[in-house]
Amino acid sequence: MTDPVLTICFPDWLNDFLSGSPVTFPEVEARMRFVIKLSRLNTQHGSGGPFGAAVFDINGGLVAPGINLVASSGCSLLHAEVVALAAAQRVLGRYDIGDGGRFLYELYSSSEPCAMCFGAIPWSGVSGLVCGARDEDVRAIGFDEGAKLTDWVSALTRRGIRVERDVLRAEARAVLEGYAAAGGLVYNPG
Amino acid sequence: MTDPVLTICFPDWLNDFLSGSPVTFPEVEARMRFVIKLSRLNTQHGSGGPFGAAVFDINGGLVAPGINLVASSGCSLLHAEVVALAAAQRVLGRYDIGDGGRFLYELYSSSEPCAMCFGAIPWSGVSGLVCGARDEDVRAIGFDEGAKLTDWVSALTRRGIRVERDVLRAEARAVLEGYAAAGGLVYNPG
Repeated sequence: MTDPVLTICFPDWLNDFLSGSPVTFPEVEARMRFVIKLSRLNTQHGSGGPFGAAVFDINGGLVAPGINLVASSGCSLLHAEVVALAAAQRVLGRYDIGDGGRFLYELYSSSEPCAMCFGAIPWSGVSGLVCGARDEDVRAIGFDEGAKLTDWVSALTRRGIRVERDVLRAEARAVLEGYAAAGGLVYNPG
Repeated sequence: MTDPVLTICFPDWLNDFLSGSPVTFPEVEARMRFVIKLSRLNTQHGSGGPFGAAVFDINGGLVAPGINLVASSGCSLLHAEVVALAAAQRVLGRYDIGDGGRFLYELYSSSEPCAMCFGAIPWSGVSGLVCGARDEDVRAIGFDEGAKLTDWVSALTRRGIRVERDVLRAEARAVLEGYAAAGGLVYNPG
């Protein structure tokens, strides 16, 4: 092995935030509130776009958080969902988070996934996706969600991945709108 | 910053191979032969699935290679295309490889992209995608390409990304078939 091709590190503020945060979130809304808070803090600290995500176990135990790190890392792949999935796989020590269906883990995201993250979800082994803001909320502030199947929810459901939408949507959307109002960087606009 | 969430390193064999390899590949076929060779070497060295990729500049200069590292890294995201894009972005020092359209770079892949890699391509800033084996060749050995738009080629073309298919397809497919015949690991089968 020589120099790393890519290294993902969490910024200090995220590690500080996690050290003062609960480790279990029994309610769906509390989990969503956590990822929305990540999305807001990420913009306040200037470490990336207004997107947060996390992988939780079936009891709401936090496995790994994720934030958008595209601009700060110089890597277009580092959407919040990708970072959360990669971090969870590292914590669990396997590329199949659910380990062949033996365990149930869910990905929470402050916004519905773009085309890349949609495609990444089935490969990760999570059994559920829970979203806050909708695609149209993301597009409304200028971000591009990519060329995604119109029936992307059904495509995931058919693969055994449940999808729950609109959880605290208004709160999630408010972060997007605040970011746009403050003149936040919108990369790769459509 | 604390412990990395994810570190991608190339295996030693790839660094050794690169040190004895040309740095410029003027012909399209030579570029494709290079990524097909990566796909074959990756299986021979046991570092991942039978997939290779690379980002080249407009003159055929190699910017960065990529190989599938899913099983060896424990990260489902590390398809050859993702690794090549991440590596190229690190080399170039920016998340938009084309720098707003100022520069033309193309992604070569030994096989057509899965749904995740399809979604990742527009975010990367490459202006072209050149493929060897087809989706159906990948599926024929048991890998899942995911829920991709039927007209995924047009979707990329509409975004200004040219797509060239079937370059040395038979050679690329032969690596897939050899992997399957040798009993290579097929993860996340459909």
